[in-house]
Amino acid sequence: MKIEIEIETRRSMIETALRDMIPGEDVRPASIHQAMRYAVLNGGKRLRPILALEGARLAGGEMERVLPFACAVELIHSYSLVHDDLPAMDDDDFRRGNPTCHKVFGEALAILAGDALLTRAFELPLMMMREPGIRCEDLMRAWNELACAVGSQGMIAGQVIDLESEGKWIDAETLRYMHRNKTGALFVASLKGGAMIFGASDRQLQALQRYAEHFGLAFQITDDILDVEGDEMLTGKPVGSDERSHKATFVSIFGLAEAKLMAAESVEQAVDSLGIFGKEGEFLRALAKSILERRQ
Amino acid sequence: MKIEIEIETRRSMIETALRDMIPGEDVRPASIHQAMRYAVLNGGKRLRPILALEGARLAGGEMERVLPFACAVELIHSYSLVHDDLPAMDDDDFRRGNPTCHKVFGEALAILAGDALLTRAFELPLMMMREPGIRCEDLMRAWNELACAVGSQGMIAGQVIDLESEGKWIDAETLRYMHRNKTGALFVASLKGGAMIFGASDRQLQALQRYAEHFGLAFQITDDILDVEGDEMLTGKPVGSDERSHKATFVSIFGLAEAKLMAAESVEQAVDSLGIFGKEGEFLRALAKSILERRQ
Repeated sequence: MKIEIEIETRRSMIETALRDMIPGEDVRPASIHQAMRYAVLNGGKRLRPILALEGARLAGGEMERVLPFACAVELIHSYSLVHDDLPAMDDDDFRRGNPTCHKVFGEALAILAGDALLTRAFELPLMMMREPGIRCEDLMRAWNELACAVGSQGMIAGQVIDLESEGKWIDAETLRYMHRNKTGALFVASLKGGAMIFGASDRQLQALQRYAEHFGLAFQITDDILDVEGDEMLTGKPVGSDERSHKATFVSIFGLAEAKLMAAESVEQAVDSLGIFGKEGEFLRALAKSILERRQ
Repeated sequence: MKIEIEIETRRSMIETALRDMIPGEDVRPASIHQAMRYAVLNGGKRLRPILALEGARLAGGEMERVLPFACAVELIHSYSLVHDDLPAMDDDDFRRGNPTCHKVFGEALAILAGDALLTRAFELPLMMMREPGIRCEDLMRAWNELACAVGSQGMIAGQVIDLESEGKWIDAETLRYMHRNKTGALFVASLKGGAMIFGASDRQLQALQRYAEHFGLAFQITDDILDVEGDEMLTGKPVGSDERSHKATFVSIFGLAEAKLMAAESVEQAVDSLGIFGKEGEFLRALAKSILERRQ
């Protein structure tokens, strides 16, 4: 299996669906829909919705049918970036090489666009309610998993810790807690949620949970490594920016060599958790391994 | 029926439930839960959740059982106030006589607390999923009604128009569009959502929709009137602040006398739409009439 081709197929399904799931710029008020589309339709990697589709497939469902859930996940990821970039938060002017949402639309509209993207994610379950073979209870569980993952004891908890530890030394436990919540929780909810919608068993869900936790950790560690030795042209942000802003990272706490070992180990553990899926787990295995080759 | 006593009974049910539905300050991270509780547990009027309870009752359900929905409505109302007060938005230092959330906790945490309150509202439907006699499909419809009411074509649309018309003259149609979305839509979703959960008929839902639209309009007009001739000690904000900030209001566009007539007419129309509920509509009738006696 060529993982790149498989990823591209999923990515393009998601791009098309995302375009349809945000109101067009002709819908009143035009400015908010422009800002929402700007924040989402920007060439993101779409890793989280790809996980959602794969969760559905592993649970025996068709990937196409879970697209509203996959989009909900990506809308939420996008909202979190818009709010994260605000002057009161990380105060970033660029994201993926483009001016951030508040730089283009102003701070007030960026706050509202983030709010609207988060809200839109919770308008989507109804679209799937009449799908044959999908139980309303399973939809509700999947969207609940998503809400909990990004709430005050999930993604937002991670952002709060990030905020409060700025310029401070934090210990390894706090760093792990921060990333488990800030990035890990949404990876987990994406993969598990997709599988839940097609009635995955508890055993399957546990395996997916373990996979996504290790996957998320490996992703974050490589993020920190790329900040030190990445190519600015590919990552879209200047090398060494974490260090200059005195951010605690896996590299600053454990050192570069140890961080690389940890990333490789997390990938191994992610792969190990896929045993029960046998040959069907091939895509997730390849996806996890591809993290170690990340250049952006 | 003493409307004040009926309101107080509902209000106290809601206060207790709200306290239970936001994580305590002992839950990590403490700061976000403090900020969330500060923003919500502040002596609000709780009009929207009161409407949700009444919708449930009129559809033949017990008010207690719809408390998670009523709380979801109020959490969303609270989040909208927190974000509205931010420096980049209305830049308000006080709300109901107390310092606003960002004044106490800082801008970054206030943004996150708003986000977390909105998210929390969508964690709550699962709590009602195992309630006997409540259909999952009806829960999903109610929460969808809520999401649509506060999204980019609902409450947020109203806020965008408000933002974009600052210091500008706007026509009566735009003013109505703004308020129908900014405040009206959430009143409608609260009342209808509560009724939907207990399987209200289309005819009942239409009547409640009409009621809530007129109720919301009357509420907004009296808000504008209070800004001109209210008692600062009761309203908690200085008289004439709309005029000083060049805000278009029902008073500035139609004049005080005409605005008062419009408020009375809206209340009359709200009352008129309750015909099909007969004697059971008494609470909503009295509630609508009480708007004309608003002092805060």
